[in-house]
Amino acid sequence: MSAGWFRRRFLPGERLPAPRPPGPRASPVPYRRPRFLRGSSSSPGAADASRRPDSRPVRSPARGRTLPWNAGYAEIINAEKSEFNEDQAACGKLCIRRCEFGAEEEWLTLCPEEFLTGHYWALFDGHGGPAAAILAANTLHSCLRRQLEAVVEGLVATQPPMHLNGRCICPSDPQFVEEKGIRAEDLVIGALESAFQECDEVIGRELEASGQMGGCTALVAVSLQGKLYMANAGDSRAILVRRDEIRPLSFEFTPETERQRIQQLAFVYPELLAGEFTRLEFPRRLKGDDLGQKVLFRDHHMSGWSYKCVEKSDLKYPLIHGQGRQARLLGTLAVSRGLGDHQLRVLDTNIQLKPFLLSVPQVTVLDVDQLELQEDDVVVMATDGLWDVLSNEQVAWLVRSFLPGNQEDPHRFSKLAQMLIHSTQGKEDSLTEEGQVSYDDVSVFVIPLHSQGQESSDH
Amino acid sequence: MSAGWFRRRFLPGERLPAPRPPGPRASPVPYRRPRFLRGSSSSPGAADASRRPDSRPVRSPARGRTLPWNAGYAEIINAEKSEFNEDQAACGKLCIRRCEFGAEEEWLTLCPEEFLTGHYWALFDGHGGPAAAILAANTLHSCLRRQLEAVVEGLVATQPPMHLNGRCICPSDPQFVEEKGIRAEDLVIGALESAFQECDEVIGRELEASGQMGGCTALVAVSLQGKLYMANAGDSRAILVRRDEIRPLSFEFTPETERQRIQQLAFVYPELLAGEFTRLEFPRRLKGDDLGQKVLFRDHHMSGWSYKCVEKSDLKYPLIHGQGRQARLLGTLAVSRGLGDHQLRVLDTNIQLKPFLLSVPQVTVLDVDQLELQEDDVVVMATDGLWDVLSNEQVAWLVRSFLPGNQEDPHRFSKLAQMLIHSTQGKEDSLTEEGQVSYDDVSVFVIPLHSQGQESSDH
Repeated sequence: MSAGWFRRRFLPGERLPAPRPPGPRASPVPYRRPRFLRGSSSSPGAADASRRPDSRPVRSPARGRTLPWNAGYAEIINAEKSEFNEDQAACGKLCIRRCEFGAEEEWLTLCPEEFLTGHYWALFDGHGGPAAAILAANTLHSCLRRQLEAVVEGLVATQPPMHLNGRCICPSDPQFVEEKGIRAEDLVIGALESAFQECDEVIGRELEASGQMGGCTALVAVSLQGKLYMANAGDSRAILVRRDEIRPLSFEFTPETERQRIQQLAFVYPELLAGEFTRLEFPRRLKGDDLGQKVLFRDHHMSGWSYKCVEKSDLKYPLIHGQGRQARLLGTLAVSRGLGDHQLRVLDTNIQLKPFLLSVPQVTVLDVDQLELQEDDVVVMATDGLWDVLSNEQVAWLVRSFLPGNQEDPHRFSKLAQMLIHSTQGKEDSLTEEGQVSYDDVSVFVIPLHSQGQESSDH
Repeated sequence: MSAGWFRRRFLPGERLPAPRPPGPRASPVPYRRPRFLRGSSSSPGAADASRRPDSRPVRSPARGRTLPWNAGYAEIINAEKSEFNEDQAACGKLCIRRCEFGAEEEWLTLCPEEFLTGHYWALFDGHGGPAAAILAANTLHSCLRRQLEAVVEGLVATQPPMHLNGRCICPSDPQFVEEKGIRAEDLVIGALESAFQECDEVIGRELEASGQMGGCTALVAVSLQGKLYMANAGDSRAILVRRDEIRPLSFEFTPETERQRIQQLAFVYPELLAGEFTRLEFPRRLKGDDLGQKVLFRDHHMSGWSYKCVEKSDLKYPLIHGQGRQARLLGTLAVSRGLGDHQLRVLDTNIQLKPFLLSVPQVTVLDVDQLELQEDDVVVMATDGLWDVLSNEQVAWLVRSFLPGNQEDPHRFSKLAQMLIHSTQGKEDSLTEEGQVSYDDVSVFVIPLHSQGQESSDH
């Protein structure tokens, strides 16, 4: 069903492993010398860190096997890495019971067996150590199951009822819900949004209690009732690849793509910058010689550019600095959404990153039941290590080159995921521009939609 | 070049007319009984007001004539209405001189004649009286011309220079500008954004000085150097209609489309609601019977829906209430962006609307020079009165039905605009669903792109 290498994940109650001693990417760095550089040729230290093979053995692969969450454990995928890698993953069946709140605000399980079945895949790309990514891989699916169980009555109704407990206060309540266009899929989107927030709070508490640090991006796919939901907070990416179509299913959240939101927050709460940063964007960091000159800039309310006369305060370090993969928020972080980072501060200051980060994902919905599915239609989910060196078109080309000739191979989706990873490591005939190689962690899921469409109709 | 009825606009220095005595749409109304209803069948008062023919004579039409702004006056378009109508419009040549700041921060006009020529069309849909719309029609083009003249060196360069005065501080400055992807069109977008803000400030000052009230939406098209810029703040709309294509050139800004931004502001500054409103969205306004029930809701961070247990504070009037054309911000206003409204308060309270309104437009760019233009390719700009009863497809159908048979008529674009307006008034064979009629003001520009493409290459 999905691909890569599989190994057993921690059983509930097992202690989290202690994080690796901080490597070059494992701690925040001075905003005067930005880090968390991912696979950048200008950062040989970071490159070495993620290239260096981990000394722990990779456990034996168990391909294609998925086990229900309620069996107490699940299988996860990680590209030739140990538990202590900053990339973490999780996948499995999502078994939703029918529950409701009782009079005492306690859960009553009306149907102890699964009532609704979905599937779940998640990629977490950690920074500042693997702790947040490991916690997210252990926690998020449980948060999501709880959130979905809380609204399960609405999920299975033709239209979500205005009141969950079946009471109809106003005869026209269904009409109000209809007019707002509220559908069952909006409850799944709401559940994913709430689950990310809840998981972020759990990570904050757990890391504080254990004196650990770090954060992670999260890309989560949920297949439920004939639809595929893709929730993204960070810079991982998912695309749909079909014979004649490549469709992005997620959008990256980085300091560049969220510039206006981040500048707006600094405009509303200038104290968040502690007088150390300028909110304005310039083509480069300004210096003394620029004082008094009219220079290109833009502020929070601008999509376009204009010129302003440079003042002394414009010489401060920019809130968002650098271009493309080098762009950093407060000189520190390459992503603007994700989980964790509650303790993260700009080095040698008390300036917190967290107020600028959102844990809430953007959710897209693919109506799988409405697609005329073909055998080789797949969704590819991967962390930024893949997309830094392969374009959507290159990935689609690899998918279309590989799958049609391997239709009899039961492990073809696993092998495709493996091949995608290898082609970022210089192990295959390189497709990447000028033989580009990814020095970042890379994790990939390849999800065939054909069987999904069939399975998802069970409940 | 464009269509409708034309009449002379106020000369510079002429006093603004006193506003009409407040009619049903001319003043804010209690949030318990929302108003500013536009063409709604549930608001017969409002309907009568805009249907009632104004007693002033319509001046004789002067079709298709445009005069340069620097001739001191210009022609405007308004659908069978007097100067005192809440819909106002402006169009004309935009003559940009070559100027720069001197050492004393004074403008030096290097080239008193026009250096760059563009065209400008603008629609302003007022509320709470016509004063803001009239001021905008008199002011915005001057603000825009000033903003464009301030960056004219960048507009005509291959790539905008990092420093406006030609000094290059760093040898790699051009590379920084290149890496950020900053192009001349970004300066036009920036100039439009700044011009809207400046015009909003002028309107605020003028209305306060004259003890008047009101606000307006603004939809502005600028044709410059082979591109058509469409800047929108409010609920007017522009579309491109070609033989095989209908392309939206603007997006509406209403309390519904900007829900998350507006809720977010109320989350950050709860005092803006003065304890009278709830930030949360529910399918309908809640009442006592809903207390303690689990009811559908969403907050600022949610795209999806979830359920919450209703508390007493949830029974307050919602920050955004109603559906579709009935949706109101603070029970008062149907739009979330525009100019003016500095004094607007929720009736019988001190709660201000302005903090929730943005004057900054969203700007889209149509690369006219890259289109393979055909004779009948046009842009249709219109206030919401048109779009409330005609879909994009219906407007395109009318355009495609009318233009090919009238290619010899020099007034065909004027006649098409007139026909579009008539078809919302029940005067033509009605295209609208169930013979829908617009009771709102309606103003329309039809801009042929074919001649635009040719003219715009002059400068």
